[in-house]
Amino acid sequence: MKLYNYFRSSASWRVRIGLAMKGLDYDYIPIHLAKNEQFAEPFANQQVSHLVPALVLDDGRWLSQSMAILEYLDETHPEPPLLPRDPVARAQVRALAQDIGCDIHPVNNLRVLRYLKNDLGHPQDEVDRWYRHWVATGLAIVEQRLAGTAGQFGFGDTPGLADCLLVPQVYNAQRFDCPLEAYPTVMRVNAACLALPAFANTHPSVCPDAA
Amino acid sequence: MKLYNYFRSSASWRVRIGLAMKGLDYDYIPIHLAKNEQFAEPFANQQVSHLVPALVLDDGRWLSQSMAILEYLDETHPEPPLLPRDPVARAQVRALAQDIGCDIHPVNNLRVLRYLKNDLGHPQDEVDRWYRHWVATGLAIVEQRLAGTAGQFGFGDTPGLADCLLVPQVYNAQRFDCPLEAYPTVMRVNAACLALPAFANTHPSVCPDAA
Repeated sequence: MKLYNYFRSSASWRVRIGLAMKGLDYDYIPIHLAKNEQFAEPFANQQVSHLVPALVLDDGRWLSQSMAILEYLDETHPEPPLLPRDPVARAQVRALAQDIGCDIHPVNNLRVLRYLKNDLGHPQDEVDRWYRHWVATGLAIVEQRLAGTAGQFGFGDTPGLADCLLVPQVYNAQRFDCPLEAYPTVMRVNAACLALPAFANTHPSVCPDAA
Repeated sequence: MKLYNYFRSSASWRVRIGLAMKGLDYDYIPIHLAKNEQFAEPFANQQVSHLVPALVLDDGRWLSQSMAILEYLDETHPEPPLLPRDPVARAQVRALAQDIGCDIHPVNNLRVLRYLKNDLGHPQDEVDRWYRHWVATGLAIVEQRLAGTAGQFGFGDTPGLADCLLVPQVYNAQRFDCPLEAYPTVMRVNAACLALPAFANTHPSVCPDAA
């Protein structure tokens, strides 16, 4: 498999974590978003959204959307599982993942920040305030949800899908100097994850394309 | 089961479609977003995100996030399936759903539009332009993806998860007068879905709380 991704992209990191948890090897193909490589061929032609990550299977088929890719990895390589077995528990884990993957990240994605700055003319400090507002709103929700689900990790004592999204989101928040002391459970889970090789060894700072 | 939802909320409609496809009965509990009922008890205390929909199971447990709820319905009531059986096909359907559920809808959600207007001071015409920009960007991607997946419906000739998201998104786009002629496959699939009872009988216009 090949993973088209970018070291700092949190959606990319989610998939790197999932691949590492499953013990799967892949070719790391960097797409430098700040240099607009997402609009260059061959990536742009295959990944019509111009978003990373994209996972290319050995038969050449392209998969997109990080949460869909993680579910694919879980279905095709069931051990260790990214989701619990009970349907309600699975729904809770997926909801946690989507609290981040739908309600925090897309609103703060690079293309949205660029639109605020370039099309709507907001100065950087207003763009940063926007970013921090949605992180604060979203992590407050995640913190409350974790009160009902967290053990050592986001759902119980086994790392899984929710953690694949939580850790990259915290990394992003830290990059944008978001205050995080109001989310002690989020930060405790984050620290527990980062102690695991699947998270530590895929951290943006150790990626081949890290600046 | 009880479904807390709002007739015009596209995320709510997704779940109404799923429940109807599975032939499941539920109590319809309206939460009027424009009247800020999402911040009132008992909803606000249980649904910490203050977002609709929420599905309350017969044992009293609350499920949130429309795509997580749809997966739950599919796992607990497998027929008719919302997802195909092949893992790659499942990933493609989920990616289509997330192209809408992650990359279009959250950026145009009510709370984001309110922030643009109330916090950043944009007049309504700029808010509308924002809305149409992300619909145009997102549906262009969906249109291209459908070229590889669509039959009569979004993925092949069986309605499923992707359609549960596509139809409410088109409805939203029409409400905001977004031009849609550039997305003929999207509109063809939308029309095919609306001919089915699961879609027609859950349409916002026939909901109990429709204005």
